[in-house]
Amino acid sequence: MAHVLAVSGSPMEISRSNVLLGHVSSILESRGHTVDTLRIRDLPAQALLHADFGNPALVDSSARLEKADGVVFATPVYKAAFSGLLKAWLDLQPQFGLTGKCVLPLATGGSVAHALALDYALRPVLTSMDARHVVNGFLVLDRYIEAPTPVEPSPIEAPVNIHADAEPALIKVVEGFLDSLQGTRFAA
Amino acid sequence: MAHVLAVSGSPMEISRSNVLLGHVSSILESRGHTVDTLRIRDLPAQALLHADFGNPALVDSSARLEKADGVVFATPVYKAAFSGLLKAWLDLQPQFGLTGKCVLPLATGGSVAHALALDYALRPVLTSMDARHVVNGFLVLDRYIEAPTPVEPSPIEAPVNIHADAEPALIKVVEGFLDSLQGTRFAA
Amino acid sequence: MAHVLAVSGSPMEISRSNVLLGHVSSILESRGHTVDTLRIRDLPAQALLHADFGNPALVDSSARLEKADGVVFATPVYKAAFSGLLKAWLDLQPQFGLTGKCVLPLATGGSVAHALALDYALRPVLTSMDARHVVNGFLVLDRYIEAPTPVEPSPIEAPVNIHADAEPALIKVVEGFLDSLQGTRFAA
Amino acid sequence: MAHVLAVSGSPMEISRSNVLLGHVSSILESRGHTVDTLRIRDLPAQALLHADFGNPALVDSSARLEKADGVVFATPVYKAAFSGLLKAWLDLQPQFGLTGKCVLPLATGGSVAHALALDYALRPVLTSMDARHVVNGFLVLDRYIEAPTPVEPSPIEAPVNIHADAEPALIKVVEGFLDSLQGTRFAA
Repeated sequence: MAHVLAVSGSPMEISRSNVLLGHVSSILESRGHTVDTLRIRDLPAQALLHADFGNPALVDSSARLEKADGVVFATPVYKAAFSGLLKAWLDLQPQFGLTGKCVLPLATGGSVAHALALDYALRPVLTSMDARHVVNGFLVLDRYIEAPTPVEPSPIEAPVNIHADAEPALIKVVEGFLDSLQGTRFAA
Repeated sequence: MAHVLAVSGSPMEISRSNVLLGHVSSILESRGHTVDTLRIRDLPAQALLHADFGNPALVDSSARLEKADGVVFATPVYKAAFSGLLKAWLDLQPQFGLTGKCVLPLATGGSVAHALALDYALRPVLTSMDARHVVNGFLVLDRYIEAPTPVEPSPIEAPVNIHADAEPALIKVVEGFLDSLQGTRFAA
Repeated sequence: MAHVLAVSGSPMEISRSNVLLGHVSSILESRGHTVDTLRIRDLPAQALLHADFGNPALVDSSARLEKADGVVFATPVYKAAFSGLLKAWLDLQPQFGLTGKCVLPLATGGSVAHALALDYALRPVLTSMDARHVVNGFLVLDRYIEAPTPVEPSPIEAPVNIHADAEPALIKVVEGFLDSLQGTRFAA
Repeated sequence: MAHVLAVSGSPMEISRSNVLLGHVSSILESRGHTVDTLRIRDLPAQALLHADFGNPALVDSSARLEKADGVVFATPVYKAAFSGLLKAWLDLQPQFGLTGKCVLPLATGGSVAHALALDYALRPVLTSMDARHVVNGFLVLDRYIEAPTPVEPSPIEAPVNIHADAEPALIKVVEGFLDSLQGTRFAA
C-alpha cells in the first residue's frame, strides 16, 4: 500500500479545501493507503515567510513530504491562481522535492471561471519540482462542498460532504491518482 | 508627479530583489516621483498567513496600495513562478485592488530559463486584479546585481548596483512604466 | 483618430468570433476610428502553414499589421487556449511585431470555464511580441452572441448582435482599449 | 510493445524539430516499440486551416492518433509558445483525444529563455485533452542539434545527431516516457 501526504493550502481555520481534502483522504484510506495530513497554516508563520530552512517544524514537514509516495494538494483559488500560502511552503522544499512522486492537484472556488488555474498556474510549478506524474486534477465548486463547521473536533473534517453532482468527476481524478500510485510502486 | 508603491516579495532579509527594487526606486525618484517601499516580509507573518484581514499592519499595507498610482513588484523566481510570499500578500488585497494602476513586474533569478515566469505566472494574477496596465517586465540575472551586504543600514539598498550589461533592458522597461504612469494621470 | 486592425482567428466561415469582431469594429468606427478587418482563414493556407514568409498575401497582411495603431484579436477557445490558426499567423510576424501597439484580446466560448485562456495563453504570446499595452480582454459566451447566418452578405457580420447581459462587460474592455489608443497617440 | 505516434509541429521542410523527433524515434524503435511519424505540414493545408473535419487525410491522421499508446510531440518555440501549426492540428482532434495516452512534449529553440514554454503553454493544452500522463519534457537548444540537410532522403532525419551535452537530459525524459508507456500497458 502507498503512503500519501495530504496538503491543505488554505489560510483559513475553517475551509472548504480542508473538507475536500478530508473527503479524498477517507477514500484513499478506504482503499488501504495511509494518509498524513499537513495544514500549512499550522506551521510556524514567521519561519515560513522568512524562508528559515532550519526551523524544526519546517524541516519536519519536508521530511513528511520526502516519505510520501503520493501527494494530494487542496487549495482555494485566489486571484486566478492557487494560494500564496501553498506556494510559500513549496518554495521551501528542494528544487526536485517531488521526484518519483504522484501528485493530485485539487482546488475549490466559487466559479468555474477559475477552472484553468490548476493547469496553468499550479501544474507548471509541480512539474518544475520533477513530480513523476501530476495526474488530472479538479476544481470543486464551493456550492458542492458542505459548509465546514467550527465545532468539528478533527483538524480535517468528516468524509461524506461532497454534493452528489460533483462526486463522479472527483472520483474519476482520485481513481487516476490511485492508478498512478500503483504504477509508481511497480516502477520502484 | 506620480506616487509609486515599490513591493519586495523576497522572503530574505538580504536579497537581490531588494537591491533591484532600490535601484529602480532611485530612478523613479530622480524623475520626480515619490516612492513608498513595502517589504512584505516585514509584515506580521501570522496575520499574513492566516488571512487576518483586520490586522492593523495589513490594513495599513492595503491603504498604501490604494494610494499608489503605480506599483513596482520585485520577486525572486522560485519553482518556475514568483514567490509565495508575494502571492500571500496579493491574496489579501481586494479582488480588483489594482484598478486604475500601472504595474511594473520585475524578477531576479539565476538563469534566463526562468524568463517566462513573469509573463506566464505573475502577469495573469495582476491582470485578474484589474490593473490598468501591466507594462513589459524584466528578469535581471543574479550575476548582474551587486551582492547585497548585511551591513547596509537602509532597508532597501543603495542605487548604483546593477551591472552595465543589464542596465539598458532595465531602463527600457522603467521608461515604459513612466510612460504608462503619465498616461494614467492624463486619464484621471 | 487611430487606425485599428481587427483580426479574426476563427477557422470557420460562419463564426461567433466574426460576429463579435464586427460588433466591436462598429463601436470603434462610431467613435471615429478606422478599422481594417483581417480574417486569417482567407489567407493562402499552404503559405501560412509552411511559413512561406515571401508569399505576397502574407507580406501584405504583415504590412497591414505594421500600419495599425491598435489591434483587436477575436478567437474561439479550443483545447483551453486560443486557435492554432491565430497562432500560425502570429508565428509569421516579426518577433517584436506589436511594438508600440495597443491590443484588445477577445474570445468566444461555450463555458466560463475557458475564461482564463485569454490571460494565461494568449496574453503571454502578445507580450512576447512587445505590445505596448495588452488591455484587459473578455470572453463572450456563445449564448450571448447572435447565431451568425450564412446568408450574411458582408464578411464580418452586422453590429447589433451581442446579448444585453454581455454588453456592459464588453463595452468596459472596449473603453479601456480606446483609452489606451488615446495614450498611444499622445506618446507618439 | 507499445505503438507511438511521433508528431512534428514544425512548419519548415528542413527543421531541427524533425531531427530531434527522428533521434527519439530511433531510441524508441531500438527498445522494440513501433513508431508512426506524422508531419503536420504534410497534411492538406486548406482543410487544416478551415477545420474541414471530413477531409480524408485529416480523418486518417486522427485515426493514427487514436491507434497510438503514446505520442511524442516536437515543436519549435515561437513567440514564447509552441507552433501554431501544431495547435491547428490539435484543434481538430476530439476534446478528449488523448484519453489513456502517454505524451512526451519536446521543443527546440535558440535560447533557454524559452524553457518554460513547454510547461506553461503546451502542457495545459495536452492536459485539457485528457492525456493519461504528460511526462516531463525537454527543450533542446538549436546548437545541440545537427543542422538538418535538404539532401536527406527520408522525411525524418537519421538518428545520431544530438550533441553529447544535451543527450543525458534528453535520455532522461525519454526513459520517463518509456516507464509511463509500460504503466499504461499494465493499466490496460
